Amino acid sequence: MTYPDILSQRSKCRKVPLFMTPVKFPEGFTPAKNSITLNYGVPNQGFFPIAQVQTSVLDAPFGAIDNNKYTVNTVESDPNTIDLANGLQYANSNGLPQIRELVSQIVERTHTPGYPEWKITLCCGACDGLNKVMNVLLDPGDTVLMEEFTFTPVKGYVDNFQAKVVPVKLDLTGKGLDVDYLTDLLANWESKYPDHKRPKAFYTIASGHNPTGITQSKQQRQQVLDLAKKYNFAIIEDDPYGMLQFPDYESKQYSQPTSVDTFLEELVESYSELDTEGRVVRVETFSKLFAPGLRLGYIIANPEVIKAIDAVSDVTTRAPSGVSMLMVNNTIRNQFGGVDGFIRWVMKVKEEYHIRRDKLLDALYHSEAYKKGYISFNPPQAGMFVSVVVNFGCEAAKLAEEVNNLLIYLAAVGVSVVAGLGLSVDPEFSGTRAQFFRLTFACASTHEELSEGGTRFCNAVEQFFANGHVWKQ
Amino acid sequence: MTYPDILSQRSKCRKVPLFMTPVKFPEGFTPAKNSITLNYGVPNQGFFPIAQVQTSVLDAPFGAIDNNKYTVNTVESDPNTIDLANGLQYANSNGLPQIRELVSQIVERTHTPGYPEWKITLCCGACDGLNKVMNVLLDPGDTVLMEEFTFTPVKGYVDNFQAKVVPVKLDLTGKGLDVDYLTDLLANWESKYPDHKRPKAFYTIASGHNPTGITQSKQQRQQVLDLAKKYNFAIIEDDPYGMLQFPDYESKQYSQPTSVDTFLEELVESYSELDTEGRVVRVETFSKLFAPGLRLGYIIANPEVIKAIDAVSDVTTRAPSGVSMLMVNNTIRNQFGGVDGFIRWVMKVKEEYHIRRDKLLDALYHSEAYKKGYISFNPPQAGMFVSVVVNFGCEAAKLAEEVNNLLIYLAAVGVSVVAGLGLSVDPEFSGTRAQFFRLTFACASTHEELSEGGTRFCNAVEQFFANGHVWKQ
Repeated sequence: MTYPDILSQRSKCRKVPLFMTPVKFPEGFTPAKNSITLNYGVPNQGFFPIAQVQTSVLDAPFGAIDNNKYTVNTVESDPNTIDLANGLQYANSNGLPQIRELVSQIVERTHTPGYPEWKITLCCGACDGLNKVMNVLLDPGDTVLMEEFTFTPVKGYVDNFQAKVVPVKLDLTGKGLDVDYLTDLLANWESKYPDHKRPKAFYTIASGHNPTGITQSKQQRQQVLDLAKKYNFAIIEDDPYGMLQFPDYESKQYSQPTSVDTFLEELVESYSELDTEGRVVRVETFSKLFAPGLRLGYIIANPEVIKAIDAVSDVTTRAPSGVSMLMVNNTIRNQFGGVDGFIRWVMKVKEEYHIRRDKLLDALYHSEAYKKGYISFNPPQAGMFVSVVVNFGCEAAKLAEEVNNLLIYLAAVGVSVVAGLGLSVDPEFSGTRAQFFRLTFACASTHEELSEGGTRFCNAVEQFFANGHVWKQ
Repeated sequence: MTYPDILSQRSKCRKVPLFMTPVKFPEGFTPAKNSITLNYGVPNQGFFPIAQVQTSVLDAPFGAIDNNKYTVNTVESDPNTIDLANGLQYANSNGLPQIRELVSQIVERTHTPGYPEWKITLCCGACDGLNKVMNVLLDPGDTVLMEEFTFTPVKGYVDNFQAKVVPVKLDLTGKGLDVDYLTDLLANWESKYPDHKRPKAFYTIASGHNPTGITQSKQQRQQVLDLAKKYNFAIIEDDPYGMLQFPDYESKQYSQPTSVDTFLEELVESYSELDTEGRVVRVETFSKLFAPGLRLGYIIANPEVIKAIDAVSDVTTRAPSGVSMLMVNNTIRNQFGGVDGFIRWVMKVKEEYHIRRDKLLDALYHSEAYKKGYISFNPPQAGMFVSVVVNFGCEAAKLAEEVNNLLIYLAAVGVSVVAGLGLSVDPEFSGTRAQFFRLTFACASTHEELSEGGTRFCNAVEQFFANGHVWKQ
């Protein structure tokens, strides 16, 4: 299979230094068996101080501790278990085989790409993964499309490779990603961005977008993918929240018994699933479905891209933490009971987020600020963010001042949120579309805290408007 | 204090994207207490499936399991412990505060830099650390000095930033690092390397050098540091083996009771300790003293360099694995009994390596190959490598063929070693000095295996010479 030509020159030219001198053996020569290894500069496992680790898991998020401890020793006979001899040892840059196999199984079960040759590799969390993706796709002066509001550190990853970012318009309370805008932009690129090369990639968070909460429909994804094909750019699909998709706000149906199959069928197709030619580079992470401190994620792409990413890992981070790989692999295989067990855990995580979303939305919908039209928002269909547009009614030049004044009211009532103003890829481009605030329902300790937080937010907005948009004690 | 001007332009110009909009509060304004956080997009700890981890440690390398398990829960009251709520959560890019403090204590106890303002930061193992160091020191076209043989992947880190490597001569069986050569090189740079900029840094593994086993004396280090000052370049001190320093081969004194103080006093001063102006960037790792799978290391440098490195981490890996940080921090603090307890563990590790070195050296010294003058070597004073020079007696152009022929003999007797030929920074420069083989005493399972491996190596060399340097069945 021939894959789209999306690799950077940097990546095409990268040479990985050899360490071991390859030997040319004479014909018919057979090396001795049971060779003694005085070559690898790795400590024998007998030097590792930790000789046994026992873990206990919860029966559900915020649930009770399951009393069945799982124990891993230095050497385990089960080949699917990562024992301490392997988990604490150096690993190949692309990760330990057990978790590589597990991740492949998860991908197959959840988001099988639309072409058979796809490969996976591990990374040290999504940030590391995205950086490596930028490394293998972008040359200096290249252009990356991005939703006009985004997880702004990603701009830093693009900067690392001296590439440029061009925003794609979003409609926070309407259609979400503005595919018409993108279509027009690509059709008229040279007149709109005469100083920028045509895009090399579109970086997108298609489900539960951070910060706006937007989830692209299957139709939108297909349209974007068609554009990517037409104009030959890659899709970088950053999907930390793709498994956290919720029913409509109105449904109010919680914890309905559902099979893993039904749960998976109801997920919007990922770009990766719609991709039939190896154009999508998908980055997933265990941060939101397991724990962020693991710094463990994975990348799904065509074999050329994966090979290039592994070559980057060889000369940067090498493998992710073996302890993290061990914890995730062994917990999923031996405590959750494999891939479907993990998905059942994820379904419980999703359900808790669903309840939390609705607690926050309840507070927003019941507020005077909403009823008086000061705020607008779409219930997010996925993820952990509600973005609330505050209808300041000001021009763009005044927005920073208005936002600052509202932030004072928010500090006065005691609720911390993120202003959309700082999340813009190109503030001039976004103008007054940046008049939103990102509220997350992920980190609150209790449902009451979410209700209270939402109420405080709305009260602050109401006071702000009542006091003529300026701070009064 | 003013530090030497060693940062790259890249690093000086790096802007870290802001995420949170800073608020300008009116004078006298006090934000509400007990603010509800709807801002951080981090999962509440209740979403983390692992709720308890118990670890058991060995009483010594290759020793027995200590029956005192250590248990860490989601929330621990001891502020020095990393509990699961923190270990499994996002962390600042420079690492969790508990282990940052612990690492500072280790540095203070073992290798206090010679100026008071030094800082530390954590990295995802030494490879990641060295990459970040290259990132903040090197601009495209810059030059890095390196020992002529080295851990060659480091060349890849220099390539990542389009800088060039220039080798420094080594004398494997004599004085080690050739400081006279370096002095002359720097005095006559423009005539020797007219196409290269003067060096920005000297990358060195000063103790138990990989692959040669060379340990630089205090005097050599001081001379190099004086040159660095004179010609204004940085020293990148990669020191994974600095704590594994051994007495003379002849002493044959093992497991002598020694205090931590005595052990530390006997270590050769590091570049960092000799550095009075913030010119040395020192990279350490827990890989050799704890376990490589952790992917956890740390960097010691002046505050400007550390700040620049943290800015790189912000837009690349972010923090190392929290699980790794938790394991190291809690094991050292709660199972080893703090910094001195950790050093006592390290002393046991060192002692095991000491015994292993001598087992391998015994085999080499007792061999016919040695007695017949086919091989020469210096007993390494540190680390995990013995580099054995094979006196092929050929010219440089023939070396690859000779090495290949010997590698066939080695495969025939069943011992794997690394040929120096592939470890050269500049094969043309090194010529026949590359006629050595790196034998490690780190990874063998038993002492017998080491003796047997050393004997096989020497037997193969003897056969190789007996058969006129060509392969005969």
